[in-house]
Amino acid sequence: MKIAVQGLGRMGMQIARKLAEHQEHDVIVLNRSAGPVQEAVEYGAVAAQSKEDAIQKFGNEKVVVWLMLPADITDAQVDEWLTLVPKGSILINGGNSDYRLTKVLAEKVHAAGSSLLDIGTSGGVWGYQNGFCMMVGGDYQSFKITEPVLQALTAPEGAYHHFGESGSGHFVKMVHNGIEYSMMQALAEGYHVLKEGPYKNLDLAAAGTVWQHHSVITSWLNELAAAALNESPQLENIDGYVAENGEGRWTLETAQEYGIPAPALQAALDTRAASRDGNINFSTKLLAAIRNKFGGHSLNGEGRE
Amino acid sequence: MKIAVQGLGRMGMQIARKLAEHQEHDVIVLNRSAGPVQEAVEYGAVAAQSKEDAIQKFGNEKVVVWLMLPADITDAQVDEWLTLVPKGSILINGGNSDYRLTKVLAEKVHAAGSSLLDIGTSGGVWGYQNGFCMMVGGDYQSFKITEPVLQALTAPEGAYHHFGESGSGHFVKMVHNGIEYSMMQALAEGYHVLKEGPYKNLDLAAAGTVWQHHSVITSWLNELAAAALNESPQLENIDGYVAENGEGRWTLETAQEYGIPAPALQAALDTRAASRDGNINFSTKLLAAIRNKFGGHSLNGEGRE
Repeated sequence: MKIAVQGLGRMGMQIARKLAEHQEHDVIVLNRSAGPVQEAVEYGAVAAQSKEDAIQKFGNEKVVVWLMLPADITDAQVDEWLTLVPKGSILINGGNSDYRLTKVLAEKVHAAGSSLLDIGTSGGVWGYQNGFCMMVGGDYQSFKITEPVLQALTAPEGAYHHFGESGSGHFVKMVHNGIEYSMMQALAEGYHVLKEGPYKNLDLAAAGTVWQHHSVITSWLNELAAAALNESPQLENIDGYVAENGEGRWTLETAQEYGIPAPALQAALDTRAASRDGNINFSTKLLAAIRNKFGGHSLNGEGRE
Repeated sequence: MKIAVQGLGRMGMQIARKLAEHQEHDVIVLNRSAGPVQEAVEYGAVAAQSKEDAIQKFGNEKVVVWLMLPADITDAQVDEWLTLVPKGSILINGGNSDYRLTKVLAEKVHAAGSSLLDIGTSGGVWGYQNGFCMMVGGDYQSFKITEPVLQALTAPEGAYHHFGESGSGHFVKMVHNGIEYSMMQALAEGYHVLKEGPYKNLDLAAAGTVWQHHSVITSWLNELAAAALNESPQLENIDGYVAENGEGRWTLETAQEYGIPAPALQAALDTRAASRDGNINFSTKLLAAIRNKFGGHSLNGEGRE
């Protein structure tokens, strides 16, 4: 099938590339700056100069557009597409938007005669290689139309799922990130105890490596922790400021709204907030180091997880 | 090499079996009750009727004994062995003892002319099949003598490590369990939000399955959570009482002693304690269900993790 991808950041580029290299799909790409468009063209994508150009490349018929943009500009971009696309088009918000806003936006798209799918995506910088996992919300018919694209992007057997009405894909992704924050916190606290407890000069990377061999805590996050500690046992060059993108906080807000206790998530958020106030220790350094490993995040800046 | 295994519970039996089936090792087994001894003999082990009998089967020379016993009887059993074994013997405490007590016990064994290794072991009920991972503390020479046995029990490449002086193996295993408590708590809170948040009847097992495909939270614990939810989406037959074996609490005590913040671990322990006071919800049911999956724990009782 034919699909446009707008937003060739870290994740968007991988999605465009994986689809462009798949022989059953044609990919049209749009991006604010020209460099990434050129890169995507090298992978086999077709460049569009504008939304109008992209729509023309669909033969002025119904379009399917995958938006992979920061949450704060996604809604305005959807609005622009809505003024241009033929009715019956499908817009996909593949970014990390707040599911509460996704529901509102979907109603607006629906009122204009098209459809909005929300697709939460995880897989970090390794998704291109291993396949992403994808959490889909929105109307079932649009999901079925886009399913061949999901199959091309994900690993076999169960790596994508349509969870239900609009917002549910972003909701499941949001909870994933909430769990991620807490799991990282668990690891960071543990390694901190290893480092500053009674046994001095313990080999932390060796502990992480042993734990990756069929222990109960075997996990991708621990693998990344072990890799970070192997490269830099003292995490010397990491200042331990831990950013966040909102998803953990939204998860906690939802928990509070529905009366669900989430004390470990609260602890993870508090630790990150305190790190930004200068409460830096070995655990916050490790959080920053792990975060950098999975997302290509800047060690001390913003990014997507 | 020749080794005796005392204590054929869940973990001890798998260790004895894996070694007995390994052609380079001879295994002598001891157990309070006769049934497990008979089972181990079927795997190729040799039954000993008593400690004296076991020592005779070593030709009355130095022995290597792997004790896989509950922490509260291990010390007394070590004392008994000490009165019987030739000097230069190696006793291995493979159970989950408090590292602070392990250090004291090791001094006593050393004073009697033998050596005590502490080996923390993880791998749950799957260790026999996949190989265990093992965290070793104690004198280096005894570690090197027993290394062929560790190689037989663990997966290739980095699944065991000698961390240092006496107690360090149990210490690293203790921290592993502390991380495990918090990681499970992270998952349990997240699934609780999925279940009781804004989207009713979300397929929780499908979420867990998607997350197992290269998401950031891919982990053995999430795999077990997904499996539990797949079998019983409402966790109907689980009453949500979550036991613990002390290791999480010891980790927190150590953190406090050394001034290391561990708020997520505190949250996990508090949740378990509250569950035993009757504060049961979907998250505590999931904790109990995961725990049962990895350890063969009774759903509401005690066990080893």
